[in-house]
Amino acid sequence: MASAKSNPGNYFEDFHIGRELVHATPLTVSAGDISLYRALTGSRHALYSSETFAMANGFKGLAVDPLLAFHVVFGKSVPDISLNAVANLGYAEGRFSADIYAGDTLRAVSEVIGRKENSNGKTGVVWVRTMGLNQRDEVVVSYIRWVMVHKRDAASPAPETDVPEMFDAIPADTLSTRHDYSAWNDDLAGSPHRFEDYEIGEKIDHVDGMTVEEAEHQTATRLYQNTAKVHFDAHAQKESRFGKRLIYGGVVISIARALSFNGLANAAEMLTINAGTHAGPLFAGDTVYAWSEVLDKAELSDSAGALRLRLVAVKDQQCETFPLRGEDGKYAPGVLLDFDYWAAIPRR
Amino acid sequence: MASAKSNPGNYFEDFHIGRELVHATPLTVSAGDISLYRALTGSRHALYSSETFAMANGFKGLAVDPLLAFHVVFGKSVPDISLNAVANLGYAEGRFSADIYAGDTLRAVSEVIGRKENSNGKTGVVWVRTMGLNQRDEVVVSYIRWVMVHKRDAASPAPETDVPEMFDAIPADTLSTRHDYSAWNDDLAGSPHRFEDYEIGEKIDHVDGMTVEEAEHQTATRLYQNTAKVHFDAHAQKESRFGKRLIYGGVVISIARALSFNGLANAAEMLTINAGTHAGPLFAGDTVYAWSEVLDKAELSDSAGALRLRLVAVKDQQCETFPLRGEDGKYAPGVLLDFDYWAAIPRR
Amino acid sequence: MASAKSNPGNYFEDFHIGRELVHATPLTVSAGDISLYRALTGSRHALYSSETFAMANGFKGLAVDPLLAFHVVFGKSVPDISLNAVANLGYAEGRFSADIYAGDTLRAVSEVIGRKENSNGKTGVVWVRTMGLNQRDEVVVSYIRWVMVHKRDAASPAPETDVPEMFDAIPADTLSTRHDYSAWNDDLAGSPHRFEDYEIGEKIDHVDGMTVEEAEHQTATRLYQNTAKVHFDAHAQKESRFGKRLIYGGVVISIARALSFNGLANAAEMLTINAGTHAGPLFAGDTVYAWSEVLDKAELSDSAGALRLRLVAVKDQQCETFPLRGEDGKYAPGVLLDFDYWAAIPRR
Repeated sequence: MASAKSNPGNYFEDFHIGRELVHATPLTVSAGDISLYRALTGSRHALYSSETFAMANGFKGLAVDPLLAFHVVFGKSVPDISLNAVANLGYAEGRFSADIYAGDTLRAVSEVIGRKENSNGKTGVVWVRTMGLNQRDEVVVSYIRWVMVHKRDAASPAPETDVPEMFDAIPADTLSTRHDYSAWNDDLAGSPHRFEDYEIGEKIDHVDGMTVEEAEHQTATRLYQNTAKVHFDAHAQKESRFGKRLIYGGVVISIARALSFNGLANAAEMLTINAGTHAGPLFAGDTVYAWSEVLDKAELSDSAGALRLRLVAVKDQQCETFPLRGEDGKYAPGVLLDFDYWAAIPRR
Repeated sequence: MASAKSNPGNYFEDFHIGRELVHATPLTVSAGDISLYRALTGSRHALYSSETFAMANGFKGLAVDPLLAFHVVFGKSVPDISLNAVANLGYAEGRFSADIYAGDTLRAVSEVIGRKENSNGKTGVVWVRTMGLNQRDEVVVSYIRWVMVHKRDAASPAPETDVPEMFDAIPADTLSTRHDYSAWNDDLAGSPHRFEDYEIGEKIDHVDGMTVEEAEHQTATRLYQNTAKVHFDAHAQKESRFGKRLIYGGVVISIARALSFNGLANAAEMLTINAGTHAGPLFAGDTVYAWSEVLDKAELSDSAGALRLRLVAVKDQQCETFPLRGEDGKYAPGVLLDFDYWAAIPRR
Repeated sequence: MASAKSNPGNYFEDFHIGRELVHATPLTVSAGDISLYRALTGSRHALYSSETFAMANGFKGLAVDPLLAFHVVFGKSVPDISLNAVANLGYAEGRFSADIYAGDTLRAVSEVIGRKENSNGKTGVVWVRTMGLNQRDEVVVSYIRWVMVHKRDAASPAPETDVPEMFDAIPADTLSTRHDYSAWNDDLAGSPHRFEDYEIGEKIDHVDGMTVEEAEHQTATRLYQNTAKVHFDAHAQKESRFGKRLIYGGVVISIARALSFNGLANAAEMLTINAGTHAGPLFAGDTVYAWSEVLDKAELSDSAGALRLRLVAVKDQQCETFPLRGEDGKYAPGVLLDFDYWAAIPRR
């Protein structure tokens, strides 16, 4: 007597505009998660490594890296949003709106805000706004993402197209930091370069490379309770397009961000995720390199400014030439990630 | 001047009925262990993931998964019980009798409760009851296991055979939960299916697969301070029966249990381990799948019932056909684990 | 517009005698780090595993293994000291001068205390004394290390040679333990052997072996925030001398020390690092074995003595014959580590 109690996930037809999805498995993010995040990504930003450094700059205790919180919230949404996804197409309007500390409990909810059937009649694109909330029901992170998902039945009629309007980037005049950076210590933070030292258009080669092993990306992705099968099931992946496990895109974001310490150590506090594209797949054994471009600058307070940064991850080639797109305008071979965010950085 | 201070382990002759063994290395189980357990197994049960979810259901804080505690207690017993073991034959009468929280310190003691020499005169079977205690000397877990161990000397006389009587399964009328499940939240727990929705005889395919890497099982097994050489020493294992490292059976139990979330998310609190057989070996690179069968049901309280579940792990084949035994009655090829337990689940 | 904001590291010319280097990224060492250290090394010493055991022996809470603290402090010094190093040549005068507890924040500073240009004019040896301090500015660990580093410019003139005087080993009469071992529990600690049971000259084969995977050493090395490229970048290492990633020597020290539990479980508290040589490289897939020799003994208090121990790590061969040096006086093939330390051990 076989039953059907396992989660079939949602299909394109299930995503009605305005539908709210409450995602499973709240998570208490602990000092253990902070240690594992560091051990798996190489993160070195002092704000998220040291309780005393964090508190000297206006935090209330040992703080959780916003990207760790993002991955946790994203992971919770996978069983409801992207279990039947063909592709994760993009992110927009990501905001980190409250600090997260060791011991906080995060849960996630999503609202469907857009959908558009594809011309093939078999798939469609769904836009959701996902929010991560803490144990006091404060929103700590929210973002839009859109995914291509399968229709349950190609014969079901196409719904009215409804594509949400989105900012290209979070507007500079809406940025803020909750923190006072007037006591920032460059030596402990790891860089002498502050807000004034970066120019719009400047490109930074982060030099170092990080090779990723199967055990590492699997462990990280489970840390976030992201269950997407493509990352874990080598047996089933033998029959897939790539023939092997695909590394969760969030692993690439975090490794590239950790590599960016070498040149951007003071741009420690990620304020927003403006946009993100996973331009190519990463597999175990590949080595990730990264470079950044300063896209914009904004003043936040007397002690802090913000840099809008493009973070590009590339595999198996160093970044002296800042690879991004080919002459055809498409991403160049080996480019993994094109990620756009605002980060706070101390002023002089 | 070479000394003999390394641990030689115990041999069949050393296991006198009634002998108590105090195992080494008490362990403070922390939030770090909880994070690692999640990252290495994929565990998603909200009771052991979220402090707020746990407390809403009658726990006193961030709780430790009973299987994590089981592995820790089991690991401590290895140097004294199974260092010279030929095989780990089975478990019985496992009870989780107190909640375990981050910060509790666990230690383990065993009592020899049975022995029987094998007809070959070279090995024998030993039964022990192992108990895990917390810092207040409360028993948090106890179980019987039996192992085949080498004799030190084939010439030593066979002792009187003494096989303990054991329950096939912990009787339903002795089960209890310490918790009130009347506020259970299905959305956060990850399943709409409660006690009333499961029928005796029902089988559930847990669908997902998890490939295990050398670094993952070694890290998990060290987390539990289990030092059995077969899991760690590739150089010595080259000369062994399998020619490579063998994965600790507890890794299989925990991965299968984590996979069972997909269909049994609400059966979160493991109450007992009724029986367990490691039917075949798992090696790095293999992919674990799992299915469950509802063997029995029992009411516990107004808010909770219990399901007796058979959890079967299989390697490198999905479980739509619920593989278990061949026509000869033996475990089918690829079957890794046949595990029998009671779990509490909320009632409507 | 490419910028030069990534860290170029220091060259031989930059190491002026008396120069102080404040290293980046203070780290709050948490229960998460303790769990990961155990899971990655196999550490089983009860003092650093159990809060209750630690407190029964005069500690104030869940304590951090001195070697974990050493690796953290060492890791912080890498970007400033050894980014352009040819080789890590040795350690001396390491002292663990304060207990470290979960929640303490460690930072590191180094002072240049010696330098000597090599006759090739291209490299030189630099001696630094590195100190790790906690959030109360107490020194918790200090040590000397010397490294061979590249000159920025072979044409720059050789500085005056200045080689610091160093102890061969921390003198016995300066040793102390802050702890009272009169309540030491051998059963829980894992060994019946105390101070009186060890003789100078005695050698102990630690028997067990541990195979190291790429994911394991990378994860450990990132845990310590050690960023040396040779450990992480398989792509760049293809062009290197070994053609592959080299495992951080601290990983070898910690695994060998963890293996030494089997024979030296009661020698739990490392008091000093007298000397250390990385005699050969370790690569993923290799198996580490270890043996120890008692070099000296000293009484510390009524309840504690100290053993001066040589800890030798060897790869892919067991240690019944205590391999160390060949007839030519050079380290024998396969020898990885020759490490000299004092450890406290309870007296009868």
